[in-house]
Amino acid sequence: MVTERLVQNIVNTSYEELPQRVLQHAKKSLLNWIGVTIGAINHETVDILMDITDELSKERQVTILGRNLKKDVLSAALINGTSSHIFDFDDTHLETIHHPSSPVAPVVFALGEKYDIPTKDLLRAFILGCEVELRISNAVYPSHYQVGYHITSSVGVFGAAVAAGILLKLNDEQMAMALGLAGTQSFGLREMFGTMTKPFHPGKAAQNGLLSALLAEKGFTSSKQVLEAKRGFANVYSPSHDLDKVLVNWGEVWELEKNAFKPYACGIVLHPAIDACISLREFAAPEEVKEIALKVHPYVLELTAKQTPKTGLEGKFSIYHTGAIAFLEKDASEDQYQDEKVHDPKTIALREKINPLADEQMAKDRVLATLEKYDGGTHNVYIEHATGSLENPMTQHMLNEKFTKLCKKTLNEEQIEQVIEKMNRFDELDSIQRVIECL
Amino acid sequence: MVTERLVQNIVNTSYEELPQRVLQHAKKSLLNWIGVTIGAINHETVDILMDITDELSKERQVTILGRNLKKDVLSAALINGTSSHIFDFDDTHLETIHHPSSPVAPVVFALGEKYDIPTKDLLRAFILGCEVELRISNAVYPSHYQVGYHITSSVGVFGAAVAAGILLKLNDEQMAMALGLAGTQSFGLREMFGTMTKPFHPGKAAQNGLLSALLAEKGFTSSKQVLEAKRGFANVYSPSHDLDKVLVNWGEVWELEKNAFKPYACGIVLHPAIDACISLREFAAPEEVKEIALKVHPYVLELTAKQTPKTGLEGKFSIYHTGAIAFLEKDASEDQYQDEKVHDPKTIALREKINPLADEQMAKDRVLATLEKYDGGTHNVYIEHATGSLENPMTQHMLNEKFTKLCKKTLNEEQIEQVIEKMNRFDELDSIQRVIECL
Repeated sequence: MVTERLVQNIVNTSYEELPQRVLQHAKKSLLNWIGVTIGAINHETVDILMDITDELSKERQVTILGRNLKKDVLSAALINGTSSHIFDFDDTHLETIHHPSSPVAPVVFALGEKYDIPTKDLLRAFILGCEVELRISNAVYPSHYQVGYHITSSVGVFGAAVAAGILLKLNDEQMAMALGLAGTQSFGLREMFGTMTKPFHPGKAAQNGLLSALLAEKGFTSSKQVLEAKRGFANVYSPSHDLDKVLVNWGEVWELEKNAFKPYACGIVLHPAIDACISLREFAAPEEVKEIALKVHPYVLELTAKQTPKTGLEGKFSIYHTGAIAFLEKDASEDQYQDEKVHDPKTIALREKINPLADEQMAKDRVLATLEKYDGGTHNVYIEHATGSLENPMTQHMLNEKFTKLCKKTLNEEQIEQVIEKMNRFDELDSIQRVIECL
Repeated sequence: MVTERLVQNIVNTSYEELPQRVLQHAKKSLLNWIGVTIGAINHETVDILMDITDELSKERQVTILGRNLKKDVLSAALINGTSSHIFDFDDTHLETIHHPSSPVAPVVFALGEKYDIPTKDLLRAFILGCEVELRISNAVYPSHYQVGYHITSSVGVFGAAVAAGILLKLNDEQMAMALGLAGTQSFGLREMFGTMTKPFHPGKAAQNGLLSALLAEKGFTSSKQVLEAKRGFANVYSPSHDLDKVLVNWGEVWELEKNAFKPYACGIVLHPAIDACISLREFAAPEEVKEIALKVHPYVLELTAKQTPKTGLEGKFSIYHTGAIAFLEKDASEDQYQDEKVHDPKTIALREKINPLADEQMAKDRVLATLEKYDGGTHNVYIEHATGSLENPMTQHMLNEKFTKLCKKTLNEEQIEQVIEKMNRFDELDSIQRVIECL
């Protein structure tokens, strides 16, 4: 029954029923998604996918963002979806560690461009795709994640199928079949974290979800009870689960509103420390610093205790590098995690003065930072909610700045301004082409 | 360590080390696979996949068997693999209910044709691909299957990746990465049984495995410990498992030799009853039959107690229809499961005389059949091992007959003879083209 009722909810929720604040949040999510996708689009991970898909198809249907060329819809969904997760800089539903946009937005862009679908329909497909995947994640988290599944792909595939299903105007029966096909293609092991295969997961989930809807559209049959069946998704993929969470308060509570944007290009556990080190800049120049003590929950150090990172990527797992570079450069974006930055003598000198202290009493998302200067002066900064948390979200201005930083190597200033402006009124555009022509 | 040692075994096992009897069994498996693939190639399930892939790529790289046209390698692997499982008539590793050829053979045919790879190399890739998937299945069965995974796809993806990896001449490191990519793409819910999505599973597993090897060839990174890692395949997909079974007696015991071929187009539980009813033909004409009692294990009736099947497909789950049609037509192939056959008054008249009796004392693979005639005569037939079991395997002649029946609507007599003859000496052919040109 859960799957059937979910399908009814999806099909019967019109654009007009979507609250303004949800639409606003969706437009921010899409802007953020375009930014992280373009930011990583020249990464080696993408190069390999480009090569392989070149040999499989010469169809030029929809755009690879930031690459100025087109591919067939399934390849484009794979590649754009993968690119958007390479930096681990995409949006996050904090309650389930699910990154909602990366499997769904590539499908919206692929079908939107191919069929030139009105932007309001695209927003509806994006919002409902995200809503479904996040509600299913609520139902299986944390059990599903603890078993070892990468929830962004293993559950994200449902979101991709729903978005595609809406854009292909599937009826109830077809939408149920699409969910069945999506659920049976669920995949993604957390063992792959730290390799190219991690970002491949949401890309492939986008592709699998899109394929599911394409098959259902043509009459392909699958199960209509994929969520609740004895050998269906929840029972097989999640030892404990509560499927009531899929339907509860539909249309009243929107999970997409709980979607947070990361201001910094590293794990969220380090964000309070970054905020703190940036705040401490006003009290001392780097050469005046004797020590920066960072009192954090022990969990933070479990993940980020790397004292001498050898690469920029390792720097993301180092509270020493991250604290130092944030103090020096007032930021922790991809620029601050380039290989040369972890080898820079100035950063190294300062990171040796970072002194993290584990304290069970600190909440995981907080930090107490104490700056001690050579002249004896001390300053404290307490971060209660880091930038990018739900309590202290990134403003539109901050999102625009993040977007600009991510895109500046690929797009010129005018293009960047145009994309920001157009995504801000995406629902009023006559076509998604107005955005894509700037990319 | 298991994954690393497995990779060494794969890469270091040469063609010369493969025993003759394994090579013979591989050639039979491939002939059987071609037959079941061509037999279903005009099914609606295949039509839909053909349509969708047509829109995605116009590349003409390798042949869709029995369709006289070509597609890109990934689409061909998907379509040929799906077709081969539509009739549930492909080969079976009885200990794990894994159908080894359907995810592996399509990859061998796709790369073999694209690069015109010598047939001996193709046999090696097929054998090692099957060996790896069946050994992994041994390690996770029955736990993995009981959770609800369709083992033919969820484990078959490893076999597909290995076969592709061998044909692409991956080195140890690349082969490990290919296994990692395959494992993370493992999928397939048993909930989908009875729908088009069931045969889609091995097709998609073939495609996922091939993609894994293509990515690894280009340097895509994944985990090198996919089987044994804390959040790797075995721990995530199978609550209990014994990974020692992956390596034990490598090169001495060949799982592929335990691969059985089905003579009849229905579940194996009905095969003893079919053998029995065919044997009883010599004792009576249909109109002389008063009753045919079939004493079977209760499990057989759990699966096949459908008294009045409405479609040919339902006939496969009816011991009544199956016993009657086997008596009438001396066979239980696809022909005997056409819709008109279950509605034929002659079959209906006889199926009402089939009287199955559940008996805990009967082994699951046996039957005691008792024919009672109107004239008072009775005849017993006891089937200890049904045709197609490991103890009573199909002969080459029977396999050739099965192949002929499956292909007769698509190929002419001469083509059929040629394929049988060529597959019988596949290792001596100068090219796989010699087979494909007949299809």
